[in-house]
Amino acid sequence: MSWLETSIMARKGVAKGETRSEHTLTEAEQGKYHYVYGPYATPTLTVKPGAVVSAETHDAFEGKIRSESDKPSAILNFPYLNPQNGPIFVEGAEKGDALAVYIKSIEPRGPQPRGTTCLIPEFGGLVGTGDTAMLNAPLPERVRKVEIDAKTGVKWNDKITIPYEPFIGTIGTSPEIEAITSLQPDYYGGNMDLPDVGTGAVIYLPVNTKGALLYLGDCHAAQGDGELCGVAIEHPTVTTLQIDLIKGWTIRWPRLENERVIMTIGSGRPLEDAARIAYRELTRWMAKDYGFEELDAYMFLTQAGRVRLGNMVDPKYTIGASIAKSYLK
Amino acid sequence: MSWLETSIMARKGVAKGETRSEHTLTEAEQGKYHYVYGPYATPTLTVKPGAVVSAETHDAFEGKIRSESDKPSAILNFPYLNPQNGPIFVEGAEKGDALAVYIKSIEPRGPQPRGTTCLIPEFGGLVGTGDTAMLNAPLPERVRKVEIDAKTGVKWNDKITIPYEPFIGTIGTSPEIEAITSLQPDYYGGNMDLPDVGTGAVIYLPVNTKGALLYLGDCHAAQGDGELCGVAIEHPTVTTLQIDLIKGWTIRWPRLENERVIMTIGSGRPLEDAARIAYRELTRWMAKDYGFEELDAYMFLTQAGRVRLGNMVDPKYTIGASIAKSYLK
Amino acid sequence: MSWLETSIMARKGVAKGETRSEHTLTEAEQGKYHYVYGPYATPTLTVKPGAVVSAETHDAFEGKIRSESDKPSAILNFPYLNPQNGPIFVEGAEKGDALAVYIKSIEPRGPQPRGTTCLIPEFGGLVGTGDTAMLNAPLPERVRKVEIDAKTGVKWNDKITIPYEPFIGTIGTSPEIEAITSLQPDYYGGNMDLPDVGTGAVIYLPVNTKGALLYLGDCHAAQGDGELCGVAIEHPTVTTLQIDLIKGWTIRWPRLENERVIMTIGSGRPLEDAARIAYRELTRWMAKDYGFEELDAYMFLTQAGRVRLGNMVDPKYTIGASIAKSYLK
Amino acid sequence: MSWLETSIMARKGVAKGETRSEHTLTEAEQGKYHYVYGPYATPTLTVKPGAVVSAETHDAFEGKIRSESDKPSAILNFPYLNPQNGPIFVEGAEKGDALAVYIKSIEPRGPQPRGTTCLIPEFGGLVGTGDTAMLNAPLPERVRKVEIDAKTGVKWNDKITIPYEPFIGTIGTSPEIEAITSLQPDYYGGNMDLPDVGTGAVIYLPVNTKGALLYLGDCHAAQGDGELCGVAIEHPTVTTLQIDLIKGWTIRWPRLENERVIMTIGSGRPLEDAARIAYRELTRWMAKDYGFEELDAYMFLTQAGRVRLGNMVDPKYTIGASIAKSYLK
Repeated sequence: MSWLETSIMARKGVAKGETRSEHTLTEAEQGKYHYVYGPYATPTLTVKPGAVVSAETHDAFEGKIRSESDKPSAILNFPYLNPQNGPIFVEGAEKGDALAVYIKSIEPRGPQPRGTTCLIPEFGGLVGTGDTAMLNAPLPERVRKVEIDAKTGVKWNDKITIPYEPFIGTIGTSPEIEAITSLQPDYYGGNMDLPDVGTGAVIYLPVNTKGALLYLGDCHAAQGDGELCGVAIEHPTVTTLQIDLIKGWTIRWPRLENERVIMTIGSGRPLEDAARIAYRELTRWMAKDYGFEELDAYMFLTQAGRVRLGNMVDPKYTIGASIAKSYLK
Repeated sequence: MSWLETSIMARKGVAKGETRSEHTLTEAEQGKYHYVYGPYATPTLTVKPGAVVSAETHDAFEGKIRSESDKPSAILNFPYLNPQNGPIFVEGAEKGDALAVYIKSIEPRGPQPRGTTCLIPEFGGLVGTGDTAMLNAPLPERVRKVEIDAKTGVKWNDKITIPYEPFIGTIGTSPEIEAITSLQPDYYGGNMDLPDVGTGAVIYLPVNTKGALLYLGDCHAAQGDGELCGVAIEHPTVTTLQIDLIKGWTIRWPRLENERVIMTIGSGRPLEDAARIAYRELTRWMAKDYGFEELDAYMFLTQAGRVRLGNMVDPKYTIGASIAKSYLK
Repeated sequence: MSWLETSIMARKGVAKGETRSEHTLTEAEQGKYHYVYGPYATPTLTVKPGAVVSAETHDAFEGKIRSESDKPSAILNFPYLNPQNGPIFVEGAEKGDALAVYIKSIEPRGPQPRGTTCLIPEFGGLVGTGDTAMLNAPLPERVRKVEIDAKTGVKWNDKITIPYEPFIGTIGTSPEIEAITSLQPDYYGGNMDLPDVGTGAVIYLPVNTKGALLYLGDCHAAQGDGELCGVAIEHPTVTTLQIDLIKGWTIRWPRLENERVIMTIGSGRPLEDAARIAYRELTRWMAKDYGFEELDAYMFLTQAGRVRLGNMVDPKYTIGASIAKSYLK
Repeated sequence: MSWLETSIMARKGVAKGETRSEHTLTEAEQGKYHYVYGPYATPTLTVKPGAVVSAETHDAFEGKIRSESDKPSAILNFPYLNPQNGPIFVEGAEKGDALAVYIKSIEPRGPQPRGTTCLIPEFGGLVGTGDTAMLNAPLPERVRKVEIDAKTGVKWNDKITIPYEPFIGTIGTSPEIEAITSLQPDYYGGNMDLPDVGTGAVIYLPVNTKGALLYLGDCHAAQGDGELCGVAIEHPTVTTLQIDLIKGWTIRWPRLENERVIMTIGSGRPLEDAARIAYRELTRWMAKDYGFEELDAYMFLTQAGRVRLGNMVDPKYTIGASIAKSYLK
């Protein structure tokens, strides 16, 4: 028996974690991709809980960076960055519910070298930026194109190959009335750039508006903690999600579950605020659903909590805080 | 001769800083107020440069907090907070231009006690919040209603009266494709809560989209630096603005001018980022338009720059950095 | 009658704010200057409350930067920076008391050009630093020497003269067992770089160890808010202080009083923590000594509090929060 | 062959990573423990490179919290917290060198229940503190005593046992002229609270003063990432270190090596500064010693770097950034 059968999705989902319909969202079906998470776009797809959707995602640059001699600053046109599939309207979803999204698979697509990373002026964790504004001269621009193979990995250079550990960089629901750049992570998900949001995990997202309006994109073939220079190994994919709906489960920030842990995800600035959000949510979750008294959960996480740094480069920084399921029996 | 005649607005504005038409934007004309700064709303008014607009603004709570026994948490319904007049479409405004907005007057309106401040749970500068997430119990809620008179001031209690020094808490243009809560300040203006944005000042705002789409609201009768508990003396007003357009003046963040200083305004978290943004913009402005070499401007601001803390409570914190015009001759 | 006669120093000081002895602390009498605030140095002077001390202070570079062709990085030898006079042992001072220090006068000394400012690599508010670590290339070094005259001001260049508004950049008591670089501000004072610590003000400092061990140095002839590039107009001075002792007044952070305001001073990172410290101390001070209920003080400071940014460049950033005495009657 | 034989310590150490003498530092031999990292204490032990030292460490509370009915605020007497063994004078060590410290073993000692954690007022990651100053009421105090067995683990309660994964919470060298509370982590090590500083690792510490003056203490039996409430499972131990000296290896921040990774350790506020420090040091280390071009190291860490959050509660927060040795061949 798979752990999935005991997941929150399976136990509480309208579709009981079962597959009840199958859909595609090809480039053609998607048509125009989106650059904000908001309620003002027309859904590209309407599904019921239990839907499995295979989406053709673009890379974060919409495929425009094709060679190592390209100049990102000449090609990229803010705010038209980080194109998203969707929105997918989930029938029955209302404010106060949670969407459960099981990541069934992520497969690279497109011609080689299909992976891209680069240095973009005034963007990244070790450079002055538009917000951490400096007078220092920016670093030079630089593009690196790499071959990606789902089996053999990401070929960094002749000597180094990184395992293919794909995840969804940007996924979330629509805010109720805001439309926020897909570059930003927040309470509804968005550009979290957190490697745990990978194949085999279930992510739970707050529903803020009718139909939830699920967006996704920005898949990474590999990424270190913090996404240091701001650009992981970006690549186009076919990403397959199973979508379920949990009625009446009101969560303030994204949560995640895999075979081993439960996790809460916070995004904010400064970075300690991201950690505080994630850990407070986890403390309260353990208190509400796992029999811990609140201060006891706080003290126990002090001894056994784990932290994953998603990004330290986006408009908000992202941290996942988790606890092993083995402690929750 | 008023200093205004030598202002940037007068020198560079399409309407040369002159009044060319007059408009009202009463509650009835406004109809529905707005809770996001974005391009998805229909303009309530279309004007040419040189327009003077008198707008009936609501207080930040849309007048719903009426007595000291009201409970903010029961009345306020996030995200439907901080109602904004507008958007006002300015003919000829295009991305890359700047809007010039001269604040002619701000007058209190409505029945007494027309001023409101309060403590809202998990909001404020000296409490845990949704972002600076804490486990401590929130402070008790508390409402204070005060009488406001434009001449005699804000009556805090029998012993203390604060001068009436009104300003616009929230004013800005629309982002290009985003729609962002009116609770947030950012590069386009928004909820800066900066007292310098008061009567007699000209604020310059980046135009991000066709028509600029000017919003305003949230006038304060008085406010300390930082807006410590998160709620100034909020009050409904008639606010009169003169709007001009500066073609081809591309600014990244709001700027301000009054008789005595030029100022740049930055918003960000942590607070030092707001200061960095403001001071970098000011350094570069002095280099571009006032004959300073860039590093010399940086060194001179070290000796003569001034900082005003707008807010330390909103989704981004706001700081204005200024230099006396007497140094710029 | 001077306001000083009603100051806290006059009302509560052991010497009632009176002058009871006079002392000098010339370069020769000082001998070796100090680079840490700590209890491990031998006092250079022992005084009773009521002592007036005239100290010959060095500039922050101990006079080593003599010409505009000097290279700071070649001359400055960390941690031997920011030389301090003292420590002055105050008889009767014990942990839990407060020192009151009235700044009688600050006079420039030494040959012209006696003022120095400069750009130091990886130091300053708009550059990457050792803490806000960046990969960008540092700015070029640059030294500027300026003439300072107490009457006519600081001659920045042929066109610009800045008023001479001197203050003590670094002043404080010793920690109990720590010895902390004189580059850092903290709960005991230190390198606050706050312009309010100028002639005519009384600063109150926590006593952490027997004799208080007062240090001072680093006088600035002028400084903008935030001390943006990290180096104000540094200059050697004769600084005259009147020292009193308030028994049993336990304060956690420095406080200040002048004719117009009372102020609390906080230092921390990020910058909002400096503001939080200052405002919390002020809130509690108003509650303890001025008849405000605590939450009422919090709400009132929201309307009438003022913030001065001292530095945004030192190991901790410094903010002063104040309220007008006119509201405290 | 152990990986240790190819460690930097073995390759570059004066003693070639060999054991050349053995020493003890029992409670009696230590005598008075220390509460600051500084050069003003007399060494308790003088050793040559190659020394193995077994030290009896106290827990962070010097054993004073003995029962769950104790009140931390009544027992703990700031700044006399976090007692440290040492300083150990290492012959031949001079400013500009690095100390190599191999952690051979950590064994719990003392009567059961020998483990302590607790909630201390205004201290912790999810509460207002002296720096992140709030008006909210503090959490209640609470002490938890737990049994610790090196084999069976830490008995949290009847249902939960945490593995015994001991590490040194506080270890470092003396600053050159400062003496800094043992509660603080910084460039010289100190209270990093980073679980990687455990058995089997080699930590490299900058030498800032003659003899290096090594301090250690504060061993934890278990700790989650971030040390959330501020107090891990504190316990007294016998900790055995092997000390070597690397002449002329000038490092700015602590580094660490174990069988699998190399790591750099940064401490700062806000938390992103700790991450920036750690990642910049790692980038430059890879460039200097492992054949990467600097910007290439930066881009590669973006894909393969790992981050461990040490503490988010101490005066500076601590992050370790690492890269797998398998990528460094």
